[in-house]
Amino acid sequence: MRLKVELGNIQYPIFIESGNLSELSILRPYIKGHQVLIVTNETIAPLYLDKVMQGLSAYETDNIILPDGEAYKNTESLNLIYDKLVRNHYHRDATLIALGGGVIGDLCGFAASTYQRGVNFIQIPTSLLAQVDASVGGKTAINHPVGKNMIGSFYQPQAVLIDTSTLQTLKEREYNAGMAEVIKYAFISSIEMFNYVNAFIESSSPKNRSGIEELIYRCCSIKSQFVMADEKEHGIRALLNFGHTFAHALETVTDYKRWLHGEAVAIGMCCALRLSAHLKLCDSKYLSQLQRWLHRCSLPCWIPADIDVSDLMDAMHMDKKILNNKIRLILFRKPGDCFITNDIASRDISQMLLKSIEGAEE
Amino acid sequence: MRLKVELGNIQYPIFIESGNLSELSILRPYIKGHQVLIVTNETIAPLYLDKVMQGLSAYETDNIILPDGEAYKNTESLNLIYDKLVRNHYHRDATLIALGGGVIGDLCGFAASTYQRGVNFIQIPTSLLAQVDASVGGKTAINHPVGKNMIGSFYQPQAVLIDTSTLQTLKEREYNAGMAEVIKYAFISSIEMFNYVNAFIESSSPKNRSGIEELIYRCCSIKSQFVMADEKEHGIRALLNFGHTFAHALETVTDYKRWLHGEAVAIGMCCALRLSAHLKLCDSKYLSQLQRWLHRCSLPCWIPADIDVSDLMDAMHMDKKILNNKIRLILFRKPGDCFITNDIASRDISQMLLKSIEGAEE
Repeated sequence: MRLKVELGNIQYPIFIESGNLSELSILRPYIKGHQVLIVTNETIAPLYLDKVMQGLSAYETDNIILPDGEAYKNTESLNLIYDKLVRNHYHRDATLIALGGGVIGDLCGFAASTYQRGVNFIQIPTSLLAQVDASVGGKTAINHPVGKNMIGSFYQPQAVLIDTSTLQTLKEREYNAGMAEVIKYAFISSIEMFNYVNAFIESSSPKNRSGIEELIYRCCSIKSQFVMADEKEHGIRALLNFGHTFAHALETVTDYKRWLHGEAVAIGMCCALRLSAHLKLCDSKYLSQLQRWLHRCSLPCWIPADIDVSDLMDAMHMDKKILNNKIRLILFRKPGDCFITNDIASRDISQMLLKSIEGAEE
Repeated sequence: MRLKVELGNIQYPIFIESGNLSELSILRPYIKGHQVLIVTNETIAPLYLDKVMQGLSAYETDNIILPDGEAYKNTESLNLIYDKLVRNHYHRDATLIALGGGVIGDLCGFAASTYQRGVNFIQIPTSLLAQVDASVGGKTAINHPVGKNMIGSFYQPQAVLIDTSTLQTLKEREYNAGMAEVIKYAFISSIEMFNYVNAFIESSSPKNRSGIEELIYRCCSIKSQFVMADEKEHGIRALLNFGHTFAHALETVTDYKRWLHGEAVAIGMCCALRLSAHLKLCDSKYLSQLQRWLHRCSLPCWIPADIDVSDLMDAMHMDKKILNNKIRLILFRKPGDCFITNDIASRDISQMLLKSIEGAEE
């Protein structure tokens, strides 16, 4: 399957196919020069690096292997990539390939956007989260110790190659984290997607994931629609951040170490729906539905009791999505009907957070 | 005087006027939110920071003062700016103002282009070099220990404000360094500009710089023409790099500490003209003319004898402008007739460098 993302005079393909890592010649038109640097991590390298290096043996191909995890999406890792590029004489016509999950994609994309003021960039996402979300849309970033994704750029790849068979080696926990972003699309997109995701979750199990390719295709298609409508997030693209203001605060106060990004998004979506229901914007049945899905996907619903709500409020005031000092949230009315607001009183937000703590009474 | 730069759907003004630092209300339309961070250095701060802070007192204005010099255009300074922005809760609608020379403009511009994936940016260049060159065109960058401007972005400012009276406090050496870029325009632009620059240099002295405003206007106008024709330097914009392949190598092998950028460009232009004359591309009278101008501006013409030509060759192979492993140079035929080539044999280049060493026989 193949999707096309079109943004002004830029356009690029997303190839989705089980096993297409064995057919990397498909990437040829998207590699300009001779030099190719593959950026990957310690977990992915033993699984797929050889295959990719071989598939690109027509080029001068080298690689850099970074430690795995959100905690390494920082300036230190970025400088390792820059050092590799500079010391090995990578030129302006070089191509950087991100082989890994969202962290690798964000890091590699940011390096590509800034090395020599921008070099070629290709995404090969290997986690479900990166395949359905992070690899599409051109957001790149690193974290700052006090704020998630604080430093970054908008930089579109030349191509995205999704081999769905890589999900077979993905840890259960990572797969589930990706499902959190899938569930996000159910809420922000349409009643049709809501029902589709419901059917997928109800019918699938760790041993039976038939239909995952179609699911990924649908998610990429939805995401690229949002991105094509609003590349630089001046408006509607912000809906993709459903649950994310809370998630980013949760990740920040735990030094990006406690959860996978998708796990924090799971808790964050519960917060967003709880607030929406509390404000009588939506039927509370949607919160129950979300919790049921998260439960089936072994994803968390609650803020652990050791986390301080005032720390979360502070972290949210640091978030990029803040405007005029007001926390900007995505709230929910019904599937496909979310909206952006910065008009919610801090008191309402902190009350909802208190009710979202593990063991709190509903 | 006022110039307009137009690039696709972006356009911005360059205001050129002696004393316009006292009329900062002119910048109002270009400042979006409430937060303004002024990025400057230890030399400029005592001279102009108060004036700018007062002129922008309608906003929440703060500042960061960095050490002065090319050697500080690095990741450490960049991280100081990021830290200030994050820890003081600067949001997406903040505006960064570069108050200083080319180093401050490049650093501040790169921070603005990457903080929260891009915030507002205004240039107030206070050195001649920044006023005639660095502040126009949207190139931002930091240096890597082994390569000049290796990390950066193309990011246009919202506005450029040039107060030519700031040149009165500029050190003689800094002023002269700026003249090197002025002389560059004489070679790459047109015979008219060549004669104009000649008349200016012959008639002006440290005590008489009448006509400097008009000169700056002409330089900005030439530069913006090149930038408007080719923003991302896929072609003709590269002519602005006349002398710069050599200059960047000279700066790199001396850890960015020995020369001001313009001084290195002065030597670099002599190298480019010597090579052009040696290849019989141009009359050798142009090299003599250049040396005469540089002499009048107290700028260097020769590579010091302690510098190793093979180190320079290595550094040139690291340069951004390299393509397919060939050094890319700008060579000269006559005023307004320069061209880009990567077809010069390394032997010719290193021979010319040997002849450019102080004390070498012509």
